[in-house]
Amino acid sequence: MKVTIVGPGTVGMVLAYTLMLRRVAREIVLVGRNRTKAEGEALDLMHAQAFLQVPVRVRAGEIEDAEGSEVVVICASVPTPEGITDRNVLARGNYKLMAGLLPGIARVAPEAKLVMVSNPVDALTWQALALTGFPPERVMGTGTLVDSIRFRELLSEMLSVHPDDLRAYILGEHGEHQFPAMSVAQAGGERIDDTPERRVLCERAKGFGIEVFRKKGNTCYAIGLAAAYVVESILMNERRTMPLSVRIDGYLGVSGVCLSVPVVVGKNGVERCLKPELNEEEKNAFLAAAEAVKKVIGEIG
Amino acid sequence: MKVTIVGPGTVGMVLAYTLMLRRVAREIVLVGRNRTKAEGEALDLMHAQAFLQVPVRVRAGEIEDAEGSEVVVICASVPTPEGITDRNVLARGNYKLMAGLLPGIARVAPEAKLVMVSNPVDALTWQALALTGFPPERVMGTGTLVDSIRFRELLSEMLSVHPDDLRAYILGEHGEHQFPAMSVAQAGGERIDDTPERRVLCERAKGFGIEVFRKKGNTCYAIGLAAAYVVESILMNERRTMPLSVRIDGYLGVSGVCLSVPVVVGKNGVERCLKPELNEEEKNAFLAAAEAVKKVIGEIG
Amino acid sequence: MKVTIVGPGTVGMVLAYTLMLRRVAREIVLVGRNRTKAEGEALDLMHAQAFLQVPVRVRAGEIEDAEGSEVVVICASVPTPEGITDRNVLARGNYKLMAGLLPGIARVAPEAKLVMVSNPVDALTWQALALTGFPPERVMGTGTLVDSIRFRELLSEMLSVHPDDLRAYILGEHGEHQFPAMSVAQAGGERIDDTPERRVLCERAKGFGIEVFRKKGNTCYAIGLAAAYVVESILMNERRTMPLSVRIDGYLGVSGVCLSVPVVVGKNGVERCLKPELNEEEKNAFLAAAEAVKKVIGEIG
Amino acid sequence: MKVTIVGPGTVGMVLAYTLMLRRVAREIVLVGRNRTKAEGEALDLMHAQAFLQVPVRVRAGEIEDAEGSEVVVICASVPTPEGITDRNVLARGNYKLMAGLLPGIARVAPEAKLVMVSNPVDALTWQALALTGFPPERVMGTGTLVDSIRFRELLSEMLSVHPDDLRAYILGEHGEHQFPAMSVAQAGGERIDDTPERRVLCERAKGFGIEVFRKKGNTCYAIGLAAAYVVESILMNERRTMPLSVRIDGYLGVSGVCLSVPVVVGKNGVERCLKPELNEEEKNAFLAAAEAVKKVIGEIG
Repeated sequence: MKVTIVGPGTVGMVLAYTLMLRRVAREIVLVGRNRTKAEGEALDLMHAQAFLQVPVRVRAGEIEDAEGSEVVVICASVPTPEGITDRNVLARGNYKLMAGLLPGIARVAPEAKLVMVSNPVDALTWQALALTGFPPERVMGTGTLVDSIRFRELLSEMLSVHPDDLRAYILGEHGEHQFPAMSVAQAGGERIDDTPERRVLCERAKGFGIEVFRKKGNTCYAIGLAAAYVVESILMNERRTMPLSVRIDGYLGVSGVCLSVPVVVGKNGVERCLKPELNEEEKNAFLAAAEAVKKVIGEIG
Repeated sequence: MKVTIVGPGTVGMVLAYTLMLRRVAREIVLVGRNRTKAEGEALDLMHAQAFLQVPVRVRAGEIEDAEGSEVVVICASVPTPEGITDRNVLARGNYKLMAGLLPGIARVAPEAKLVMVSNPVDALTWQALALTGFPPERVMGTGTLVDSIRFRELLSEMLSVHPDDLRAYILGEHGEHQFPAMSVAQAGGERIDDTPERRVLCERAKGFGIEVFRKKGNTCYAIGLAAAYVVESILMNERRTMPLSVRIDGYLGVSGVCLSVPVVVGKNGVERCLKPELNEEEKNAFLAAAEAVKKVIGEIG
Repeated sequence: MKVTIVGPGTVGMVLAYTLMLRRVAREIVLVGRNRTKAEGEALDLMHAQAFLQVPVRVRAGEIEDAEGSEVVVICASVPTPEGITDRNVLARGNYKLMAGLLPGIARVAPEAKLVMVSNPVDALTWQALALTGFPPERVMGTGTLVDSIRFRELLSEMLSVHPDDLRAYILGEHGEHQFPAMSVAQAGGERIDDTPERRVLCERAKGFGIEVFRKKGNTCYAIGLAAAYVVESILMNERRTMPLSVRIDGYLGVSGVCLSVPVVVGKNGVERCLKPELNEEEKNAFLAAAEAVKKVIGEIG
Repeated sequence: MKVTIVGPGTVGMVLAYTLMLRRVAREIVLVGRNRTKAEGEALDLMHAQAFLQVPVRVRAGEIEDAEGSEVVVICASVPTPEGITDRNVLARGNYKLMAGLLPGIARVAPEAKLVMVSNPVDALTWQALALTGFPPERVMGTGTLVDSIRFRELLSEMLSVHPDDLRAYILGEHGEHQFPAMSVAQAGGERIDDTPERRVLCERAKGFGIEVFRKKGNTCYAIGLAAAYVVESILMNERRTMPLSVRIDGYLGVSGVCLSVPVVVGKNGVERCLKPELNEEEKNAFLAAAEAVKKVIGEIG
């Protein structure tokens, strides 16, 4: 149960700490440009794990140390500009970064499942397919998982139901072109109706990433725990369903892009893509998301 | 976080042990007819909890010791006859038992939430409302929660999806007149179609209670963990959705009976009854379940 | 992470349920003489695990199905006579049982770690070494682990300290010839003095197994959780210290017998036997325990 | 189960996240000078908690919002200078900070237990007693808990035993004047001998705080989890033993200062101070630590 985290910044470290606390991974390798910092993080985690029942081994390493990893998570990123309003401004910089990292990872860990967290996650997940040559079931981005959970948290306050039981999915792009699949949203078998009040929550949820960034300079807990949720479902073969950014092969006529749809995640990575029956408005939103992400891919490709 | 378990038999004890292991309850009282046996069980659990991080206090007691309980769970039952095929044969015996127990519990723990596990659970939950005078939100039976989980387990093997993500509900009676609400069943926003193969799984799930009983002389783990799930959602105010047997007040035209429908469970007990839009066949099955349970209620009343 | 439990009675089943709830084992095989009952237990557990985050596979099987197990736990026993006061009355019956079971287990799972729970555990652990031909680090009995935890629970009530921090060990025989190693007992670096009041607690602890049995007809939670603690330390390579019954090779001059001493338990089984510096009285008690167990071994050998 | 964290920086936030993940606190208030940042942190945690079974409420607040807290944890600090080698350089700055914070906290949460994390922790814990007027059992500093765990982690690698079973305590000052109480160190009832190799580990452990700080710019996981461990033992009344900085009242002739000794932590805070029988060298080290901390107290008082 070895996991390599490339980019041990705020997100990568919340992920590492979470995998340790939830006794999911038994060996964690932290790969960062600043080796000294990565060693400091590994030392800090090694001291922390001594409080826990189940021992974990954490160390700093280079790309080569990803060898034998079941999962490699990519959190590395160029710096996020302060007044950011669109994750796509990171596209070129992060594409270059990925071009330098991913081929090496594919070489040393050719059987790994690859989880992309870096932004713009949809475009980068698409590039990761090309850069690694991995089959699509082994490449996925956290996509709108975190948007969905933020929406559910708001809905949960409104409806007084546990977020996990609010089966409402944000799909499409992890960015401006995301949309709630309200036509199939349910709680306990009851439809969650599409009301103006709930649309307001969607808009708030969509803006939360940027809002949290503006307030505290990063977002790390929700996205780090989201990534941990994906990794756990792979390592434990849980086959949980969640919206993730994956290669779309014909769903609603879309191909040639990565977007978030609900998928089943297990030991092989993306075990299955689910196909909700969306209404016209949602279909159009999905198509628009596809165009938007394709444009970004075109610009950096 | 005090819980009283009335009837520390195989089910009640799995419940007690689970509440302890999952650090849900901090104080557990075991009330049984055989005080010596209850004391032995309490001692055994007290020794076990010494292995755990969070201490729990377990003791044997009388009805009076339920005082101050947030939740009282009723697992007490007359003996189950060996060749049982219908839980209703226990109706008269258990009604008498409840008539002797519940008024006392209502007196000493007038603010408690009451969780009925004893069978036939729908009829007894109805009687419990009368015997305690508690408002309907504080009286619930485990109902088809365990049937639903058994169905999901079978579906999970067929569809390779985590059972918790298979939002398929068995509703109606915890007995012969249960039915799957397939018209609203979903996984990850995708419909779970109603196929003959899946109907076979429903029938298997319905028969599992009796099948397990025939093979091993009781059923305890699934039902004990189901009851723990209800208690945890109350004590932790989780507001999880689950099918439970509750008083039906007009849903699909039905009243004057307890049946399982999806509900939200929180610190007040049943926080809300959900109202799935069933199809005709399912509505009829619900009406038939209502008639069946009313008949049992009439016979014992 | 496959575990085989031979003897899915009350203890074996608490063990299986605990391994499932604590997400330790991923595959559990239940081997019992009554195959139908074992199948009922496996079904019941499979339904229960559908409530959990991490899936577990449980099934009934024969000795052959132990193949590939990392750990095999032996809970099988001839029936315990009602008025029992001495676990040694089970010696002949259980030795015969083990002679029928263990060689087969050694053949199909030659790399497994073997955990003996059946009584008299010290004599049977000794016989298990011979019957399997396993090296001593892979054969261990739960021994006085459960006696130690019972003593610590009583001490905990007296001293108001968490049982895990009361580093007081009951050593010797899991039976009449057990003794507390008070000369090395500590809590937080402070000595736990040997007082008459604490001696009374030792006597109570020693009698608890029989007392619980008399009250409820078995003991299962403390011993089942104790066994789970051993299995978890092996499967997770936790290297926890605990008193277990292992082959003694010269400690205090004793050889040719299994007795409980503090050991370190990890992925190889008994990673190390610790050697507390006992005082004269304790040494004599250890020698007496050795004689007592050797006598039982001689009678059944 | 309300906890207020004053100073939601890297340490305070690891503490908050840990309390959430380990389902210890149900309500967390983050009080920081930068209210906007605190709001961002609270939002991020609220989104994260939507992934968890048990809901937690997290919000930003002012000192007044600490009202009703069972525990208040102080992590606030003036900035740590880059080349720091001695925590005492923070003394004056942090004393001023505490003088501004603690009287207000004492007023709004007069029944709270106060856990000091800010450095120099021993001097500040002493000042906190004066500034709050709280009884000594309700004021404690994390002290050498984190040093002890770092030492145990190193010992664990050397001895191949779980760190929690290596009952070796670092006592005295959380700083240069700390020392290992090797004369009472034990694992599984066996003495852990005081060897030169192990003394090397102590020196490494002592330097780890500064080393991690130099490598990564802060230390947060080990100390954050340590603080969570203290808070959990209070909220769950676990009565765990651990070395914490508390007011010393005559132990080894020392008074008028806070230093780390092993204590029992429960719902009342410090339930009991343990009194290990140290050897001469250790006693002298304790006296030296007392002098060193008194000097710091004198300078800032």
